[in-house]
Amino acid sequence: MLNVTIIGASGYTGVELARILCNHPDIHLRMVTSRQYAGKPLSQVFPNLRGKVDLLCENPSLEELCRSADLFFTAVPHKTAMDLVPQLRQAGKKVIDLSADFRIRDVAVYEKWYQSHSSAEYLQEAVYGLPELYRSAIATSSLIANPGCYPTSIILGLAPLLKAGAIAPETIIADSKSGASGAGRSAQIGSLYCEVTDGFRAYKVGGTHRHTPEIEQELSLLCDQDIKITFTPHLLPISRGILSTVYAQLRPGFTSEAIIQGLYENMYAHEPFVRILPLGNLPATQYVRGSNYCDIAFSLDERTGRIIVLSTIDNIVKGAAGQAVQNMNIMCGFAETAGLEMAPYFP
Amino acid sequence: MLNVTIIGASGYTGVELARILCNHPDIHLRMVTSRQYAGKPLSQVFPNLRGKVDLLCENPSLEELCRSADLFFTAVPHKTAMDLVPQLRQAGKKVIDLSADFRIRDVAVYEKWYQSHSSAEYLQEAVYGLPELYRSAIATSSLIANPGCYPTSIILGLAPLLKAGAIAPETIIADSKSGASGAGRSAQIGSLYCEVTDGFRAYKVGGTHRHTPEIEQELSLLCDQDIKITFTPHLLPISRGILSTVYAQLRPGFTSEAIIQGLYENMYAHEPFVRILPLGNLPATQYVRGSNYCDIAFSLDERTGRIIVLSTIDNIVKGAAGQAVQNMNIMCGFAETAGLEMAPYFP
Amino acid sequence: MLNVTIIGASGYTGVELARILCNHPDIHLRMVTSRQYAGKPLSQVFPNLRGKVDLLCENPSLEELCRSADLFFTAVPHKTAMDLVPQLRQAGKKVIDLSADFRIRDVAVYEKWYQSHSSAEYLQEAVYGLPELYRSAIATSSLIANPGCYPTSIILGLAPLLKAGAIAPETIIADSKSGASGAGRSAQIGSLYCEVTDGFRAYKVGGTHRHTPEIEQELSLLCDQDIKITFTPHLLPISRGILSTVYAQLRPGFTSEAIIQGLYENMYAHEPFVRILPLGNLPATQYVRGSNYCDIAFSLDERTGRIIVLSTIDNIVKGAAGQAVQNMNIMCGFAETAGLEMAPYFP
Amino acid sequence: MLNVTIIGASGYTGVELARILCNHPDIHLRMVTSRQYAGKPLSQVFPNLRGKVDLLCENPSLEELCRSADLFFTAVPHKTAMDLVPQLRQAGKKVIDLSADFRIRDVAVYEKWYQSHSSAEYLQEAVYGLPELYRSAIATSSLIANPGCYPTSIILGLAPLLKAGAIAPETIIADSKSGASGAGRSAQIGSLYCEVTDGFRAYKVGGTHRHTPEIEQELSLLCDQDIKITFTPHLLPISRGILSTVYAQLRPGFTSEAIIQGLYENMYAHEPFVRILPLGNLPATQYVRGSNYCDIAFSLDERTGRIIVLSTIDNIVKGAAGQAVQNMNIMCGFAETAGLEMAPYFP
Repeated sequence: MLNVTIIGASGYTGVELARILCNHPDIHLRMVTSRQYAGKPLSQVFPNLRGKVDLLCENPSLEELCRSADLFFTAVPHKTAMDLVPQLRQAGKKVIDLSADFRIRDVAVYEKWYQSHSSAEYLQEAVYGLPELYRSAIATSSLIANPGCYPTSIILGLAPLLKAGAIAPETIIADSKSGASGAGRSAQIGSLYCEVTDGFRAYKVGGTHRHTPEIEQELSLLCDQDIKITFTPHLLPISRGILSTVYAQLRPGFTSEAIIQGLYENMYAHEPFVRILPLGNLPATQYVRGSNYCDIAFSLDERTGRIIVLSTIDNIVKGAAGQAVQNMNIMCGFAETAGLEMAPYFP
Repeated sequence: MLNVTIIGASGYTGVELARILCNHPDIHLRMVTSRQYAGKPLSQVFPNLRGKVDLLCENPSLEELCRSADLFFTAVPHKTAMDLVPQLRQAGKKVIDLSADFRIRDVAVYEKWYQSHSSAEYLQEAVYGLPELYRSAIATSSLIANPGCYPTSIILGLAPLLKAGAIAPETIIADSKSGASGAGRSAQIGSLYCEVTDGFRAYKVGGTHRHTPEIEQELSLLCDQDIKITFTPHLLPISRGILSTVYAQLRPGFTSEAIIQGLYENMYAHEPFVRILPLGNLPATQYVRGSNYCDIAFSLDERTGRIIVLSTIDNIVKGAAGQAVQNMNIMCGFAETAGLEMAPYFP
Repeated sequence: MLNVTIIGASGYTGVELARILCNHPDIHLRMVTSRQYAGKPLSQVFPNLRGKVDLLCENPSLEELCRSADLFFTAVPHKTAMDLVPQLRQAGKKVIDLSADFRIRDVAVYEKWYQSHSSAEYLQEAVYGLPELYRSAIATSSLIANPGCYPTSIILGLAPLLKAGAIAPETIIADSKSGASGAGRSAQIGSLYCEVTDGFRAYKVGGTHRHTPEIEQELSLLCDQDIKITFTPHLLPISRGILSTVYAQLRPGFTSEAIIQGLYENMYAHEPFVRILPLGNLPATQYVRGSNYCDIAFSLDERTGRIIVLSTIDNIVKGAAGQAVQNMNIMCGFAETAGLEMAPYFP
Repeated sequence: MLNVTIIGASGYTGVELARILCNHPDIHLRMVTSRQYAGKPLSQVFPNLRGKVDLLCENPSLEELCRSADLFFTAVPHKTAMDLVPQLRQAGKKVIDLSADFRIRDVAVYEKWYQSHSSAEYLQEAVYGLPELYRSAIATSSLIANPGCYPTSIILGLAPLLKAGAIAPETIIADSKSGASGAGRSAQIGSLYCEVTDGFRAYKVGGTHRHTPEIEQELSLLCDQDIKITFTPHLLPISRGILSTVYAQLRPGFTSEAIIQGLYENMYAHEPFVRILPLGNLPATQYVRGSNYCDIAFSLDERTGRIIVLSTIDNIVKGAAGQAVQNMNIMCGFAETAGLEMAPYFP
């Protein structure tokens, strides 16, 4: 049994990590930390966990932290992660970092979109934790930069097309819609029930959302060319789920549904958590809810020569906590699906 | 006082017409028809109307119908409208038709997307009821083809750009999201609460939605060139509201925010129901809910040279019943805002 | 035209007052105040109001305040109202106070449930602003204590029964459910979208909610005996609406549906905003949404000798802003329904 | 491995059974039946199950049915179950029936509330499948009448009080609120998204809901006296979850919180799926969502001498499919929690 600690357990990603890990057969959840709720049982902060995770929230010293476990999930804001992760790595610990701090390979790009980076030397060590692209590197890594939620949905949706050269990369437009849990559990007026329910809006429009460089980095690597995309995030009145509708111009030779479907089915044939829908089916967030699945389908618009890719995940599972556990499973030699077998819940 | 009848009052468009008309100062709502609920008070079908509209639903003969009023709202399915409207017109009645049957000018296009047209001779008479484009023609017309909900949001959002030649029309992609009232009030499993809530999906992807030719017709007229667009509708877990996120490549000379903002403000300066948001603001469906407003904003993505236009309406007000009343007001010489002064309700 | 000012315009009650007043034919909305948003247009805080209420939020001195208007709506927290209202009254202004500070006649009761009262001398002057019970006193008053939302639904639901002696008052149990706007627009974790949606809970159980003494005061007056009730509030995942399900044991002689229905229809026969449903119909919050109506129905449980009364309102209209405007109309001799004619919106 | 078949897999209870059983370690799901969808993969009806349950829906003969499995879940409407269950029993099969047909012990009571009973001889054989009350009888039974959702929440909430004589049974009032999945997956206007969302209503008021006799039967057995209760169901705009707020008058000697809390903790000390909350905590449907838990808390209203019990379950898990699996586990000697370990999901 591997000893595991969640640093930053009081956010929505933290509670989801606890929910998944409490049923994981190969690990022992040893500690959950939260400055805000230190001394309080996590199951009082999140009463759904009563009887499942009855640990107290702690605010430990680094030494206590290091004594607690061999693998750490750091579910803290960016900037905080940048300072914490190196300390854990220096103590020889495995780290799966759910912040953005180690996702961008080029420190200049990171510093342009976020702020100055205090531990840029770890950027090379970190592996971008998208198992469908980097499984073997993940297996031997000790530091995982767990992908962002929007990037996961978009990259998985486009990877087969970009690898095959099926689309013109400069025409990519990603119109993404996310549930409100993506905004986190902080007390802000814009996240109040009455502000979000029965409504819909875009935000960070025009290439200003910080997931943009992360998406572009991975798409550029896939097509071996430096690309820019248009990415528009929207806020859905749902708790969980992202659906990305991605547009691109098809290249000559890739205008048959069967060929495109083949690209998807081939690339993801053995992936436990990617479900390519049969032609004619479309995904919906409610069919991946609570699970680690990414459901993907596409449609060709013959009238305009475009492909429309639809890719959906549960933003706090495959888009955060579930993918983190999948990475842990790969790093530690567990069954890749361990702890992640839950079927999506519907209704 | 103008006598008015709603034909097909038991759908969501019908009840919204009744809700608006019951407070209209210049008309008298004389009859509401519904085959399904004939003999039942409309306020028992829709208890919100109790005390406001206490008419019985009727299933009248054509003669009774014609005796009832001088102006008719036909809120019936397409195909039904095609047969009914000519009869009303032959009796000299003014008609505002909320179906799709008289929106498409080219009968061949109509017949390709819908079915054969039994009264194509009325297509030339009908005026497309988008006041911001066709106000003067509406004023003298007796047959209005009330626009579709998606088209209203997209056409109003793009008109200033297309008229000015600011965008490359062949690059237009409209990613639209609609509330569930758009699917109507028919008992289908896909519209059940448990199927829609806490979820999100696209439908009719790849240029297959029937609003496509309507949108293309009007956009083509605006830029004086025959264009095809990519249009993707999605189903939101909200009752009312459409937000269209529309992408296009900017043409040289139109890359300044101020210039673009000027195009919008100039075109809509005197429009009572179009609100151009100040630069830096973004619309949301919940801020037009229950009102006849169309809120529009845009953002420039300098990195890719694209414009992102955001246009939102309440799909059953400006996207249906409210726009129909606005058309009536123009046709009949009433104040254009009569009956439509209600501010959007929030929260 | 009466000049009117809203003090505390940035909460959900404040924005609803502005929404109603902007279409009121007899008043001029002169000022809206908000410390938090001073200097900002109210329509930027609440973009639904753009074009309807374009006043800046102000933070005026008392003198500026008094110069602005003749009638004031004070939509501020209790305790704040207690200090402010006397100043307005001393300046000869009419005040409709939406806080709890002037609702409880017995200062000892107030001080037990709230805190010490700094202007108890105004308690006698204040009229409890429930028009269905106190219309004539309201008409001649200059200080209205606008009722709480839960009390409005429960008192209107029980008044005919208590006046007729139809129920045993000591058996009253009110199980009430409210939408989230009742918790106000403050940034609290418990009010976040993800905490409220797709969920349901009780709060302040066991006679601890502060509306309890207000309800008991008015019910006691109605049956001329000092009574205690059990009152349980719950939080619904909706924005607007309260439904109170009220239980009581019927007294001998009041076990016929027709007799009870008669009590309701008689008492409310001429009330513009109370709708007694026909026997066999049940109310729903969605049928009063956005309107000033209170819909009431009842059912007899012959097996147990109890009556179940169902009473529903929109908590920010009849439960707050709408009732306040109704009170203003009565105080100022306007048509009682002025500004309040909007039909409930559905869907 | 036990072979198991779900009869009636295309409703919300059916899909939830499939979701739970697909991860159950001790059984093999052999067949799923649905007349409506015969020949179609269940995972096309419910795409959440893709890759988890890829069986085709079948419409088998009795013989094929019997060959398929040793234990059957019958998730069919009442009346249908009455005819089917005896055939399965005669073939020696274990049956867990999720309809109401075998829950009422007194056939006269059943026939008063439902219709005539064609297999009343099985009523004595059937065990009411509430493990907390009937675990040992369940263990040796071959026919389980799986409890209704409302009854489960109310009976578990009141059992400790009734067994101890802590309350006056004739004063019991149960005000229950259920999510929309309780209405099933049939295409009815009243269940449409737009009719349910952002709304709340009561239904079957005044002792008319068919769960009433089931609740009364079990409560009467618990207090050894024939009792009648007032039961009011309501429809919540959520998918899953029931919260019952239950009122009763306390008897002398039972007015201390500590004593009452002791009754609950003692009775449910070893129950894997009942969580008694610490004093001062209140349950919420969102904290049991997706799990087999029943969360219970209470509050004393000293002012009126009443107790308010709050009891919540996920109506399609502990209120249907989960409880059915719990019963199977007990009947078959599996770990009682097998397949049911999932923590509630929040948010």
